[in-house]
Amino acid sequence: MEIDGKPYRTIWVEDPGKTVGVIDQTKLPHVFETLTLASLEDAAVAIEDMIVRGAPLIGATAAYGFCLGLNADSSDAGVSAIYDRLYRTRPTAVNLRWALDEMRALVDNRAPAERAALAWERAAEICDDDVEISKAIGRNGLALIEEIAATKPAGEAVNVLTHCNAGWLATVDWGTATAPIYMAYEKGIKVHVWVDETRPRNQGASLTAWELGRHGVPHTLIADNVGGHLMQHGLVDMCIVGTDRTTAQGDVCNKIGTYLKALAAQDNGVPFYVALPSTTIDWTVADGVREIPIEQRKGEELTKIAGRLETGEVVTVDIAPEGVPVRNDAFDVTPARLVTGLITERGVCAASERGLKGLFDR
Amino acid sequence: MEIDGKPYRTIWVEDPGKTVGVIDQTKLPHVFETLTLASLEDAAVAIEDMIVRGAPLIGATAAYGFCLGLNADSSDAGVSAIYDRLYRTRPTAVNLRWALDEMRALVDNRAPAERAALAWERAAEICDDDVEISKAIGRNGLALIEEIAATKPAGEAVNVLTHCNAGWLATVDWGTATAPIYMAYEKGIKVHVWVDETRPRNQGASLTAWELGRHGVPHTLIADNVGGHLMQHGLVDMCIVGTDRTTAQGDVCNKIGTYLKALAAQDNGVPFYVALPSTTIDWTVADGVREIPIEQRKGEELTKIAGRLETGEVVTVDIAPEGVPVRNDAFDVTPARLVTGLITERGVCAASERGLKGLFDR
Repeated sequence: MEIDGKPYRTIWVEDPGKTVGVIDQTKLPHVFETLTLASLEDAAVAIEDMIVRGAPLIGATAAYGFCLGLNADSSDAGVSAIYDRLYRTRPTAVNLRWALDEMRALVDNRAPAERAALAWERAAEICDDDVEISKAIGRNGLALIEEIAATKPAGEAVNVLTHCNAGWLATVDWGTATAPIYMAYEKGIKVHVWVDETRPRNQGASLTAWELGRHGVPHTLIADNVGGHLMQHGLVDMCIVGTDRTTAQGDVCNKIGTYLKALAAQDNGVPFYVALPSTTIDWTVADGVREIPIEQRKGEELTKIAGRLETGEVVTVDIAPEGVPVRNDAFDVTPARLVTGLITERGVCAASERGLKGLFDR
Repeated sequence: MEIDGKPYRTIWVEDPGKTVGVIDQTKLPHVFETLTLASLEDAAVAIEDMIVRGAPLIGATAAYGFCLGLNADSSDAGVSAIYDRLYRTRPTAVNLRWALDEMRALVDNRAPAERAALAWERAAEICDDDVEISKAIGRNGLALIEEIAATKPAGEAVNVLTHCNAGWLATVDWGTATAPIYMAYEKGIKVHVWVDETRPRNQGASLTAWELGRHGVPHTLIADNVGGHLMQHGLVDMCIVGTDRTTAQGDVCNKIGTYLKALAAQDNGVPFYVALPSTTIDWTVADGVREIPIEQRKGEELTKIAGRLETGEVVTVDIAPEGVPVRNDAFDVTPARLVTGLITERGVCAASERGLKGLFDR
């Protein structure tokens, strides 16, 4: 999408066959800065430190990390080491494993000398494919926004609530949850987005509000506590969120707090949609609440925060009592019964085994 | 309660008939500092700027503000001006009006020269009465904690989730939602409190976690997004929250986000209790969602935050994109159907007109 009028992707080749560029998402919304990845380690650290984040972008970065690794060592042992190094970065991300498996299958049984070139070509394809997937999700979700727009009085915006960042910054372009919104905006449909701040890492405030603002889409930042109240007062027409992992029965593992919004949506008759590329479906898991282990992250994510002083300097401050005990679960699971529909690249389906199998025949 | 071993109330007479002391709650959890209120304006500003907050403490501060005002001008015109100045500070707070009406009724038809002395005596009574009310709420809620404790395996703590600060810092002592918890702790019952951070003003992190920690009660700070997930996994035995205003049919207007926790509690069969002094019951309102106007506060509460630098200096930083549009609703309404019971100074009752009328015969 655009950043103040200039088109961007989140990851791009800088020096062909040699280096890759990414947006340093840890610096947003304070500073817009791009980084060059020139080695396997650069790519691994970019994923680990959440310089890049979001399931599809993690997959794309892992693919390019594979290429950068092969540039240095394309032997069989090198391939194994590259796979292992990248796999360790964010084990929860299904796309990460998918991209790594894809790259390994591609280079296995090929001469080491051919591997890097093949990999660079495939990584570019993975990025282009991701953009196509986002656009397909966008078109499928756009139809849902258009349906709601048709029921609103002329001139009134469709109010979409979203949680965390399943925006273009989480993918290569367009996003997943945001793709229908950007498409509606491009088509001239009036949309307005309620952006959940998304504690503790504030991805809603720092990334979603930032990217919508830079592209020009009307939006309002709210605390995570506010969505239910807005729904009680008819101020939310639909929710669209992303997912890190969707189970075979349609349960949705997404950023912590998603479940609470889904409950509020159900209580107020607001449709609750989840946008996802099919690569995030984990066919091996059925009951998400019981089966998915939830990543516990450092308490510092809750007790420290980065912000700008009046001078513009970015500093990190402690906001909680010194030494307070903290628990920081990164994700939660929204049971399928609370999900109105899954917006995928193949179409919209019910959040159920039947729904998913209807689109993805397995 | 205690602050590192020393007993405190949140408001106390410093120089009898002349000045009052309070804890500057805007400085918590970074710095513990007390302030002297020596005039009507000091008291009014203390309420307006949330140096003191919480419905009961606002009432107590207004009562002493009345005394300080009478010290300067005890004429009829003075009484009116004092009432008006204090009433304007936080018009949503029911206790504020109650305390002001109480003080005005007391001095009306008395000679101006007698008024101040009468008022100082009554303000002290209002504080003592508030402590008695909190203790009665505590005893009534303690019985509920004991019931749950009896069902837990030996040695396992009763896990109580709370939102915002309905702690002793919000009252004169003991608190409302925390009174049962402090009583259980004093009685040697194992309790552990999940403390919601409570964005945007972070009263959970800054006040509840701080006061529980200073008194020695086991607790863990969590993001507002986490409670539903903990309930899904059986990690919450009960919720106890406070309320700013309870309607005649048992709807509960409390800090924004309370409604979401009540939904999660219902979805997971976790009892959801609201602790309240009967002064917060508004018998003139039935349907809280429809009838209660919700205070909209400045967006800066969400986009700016105070924290400690490594040097210990407290600074305010901007954490959201520059110029982002913000909506900041301060409260929401939890419908009575989601409330397991109301813990009052007279006993525990159903959140319904019948339940409330059974305890408070009107």
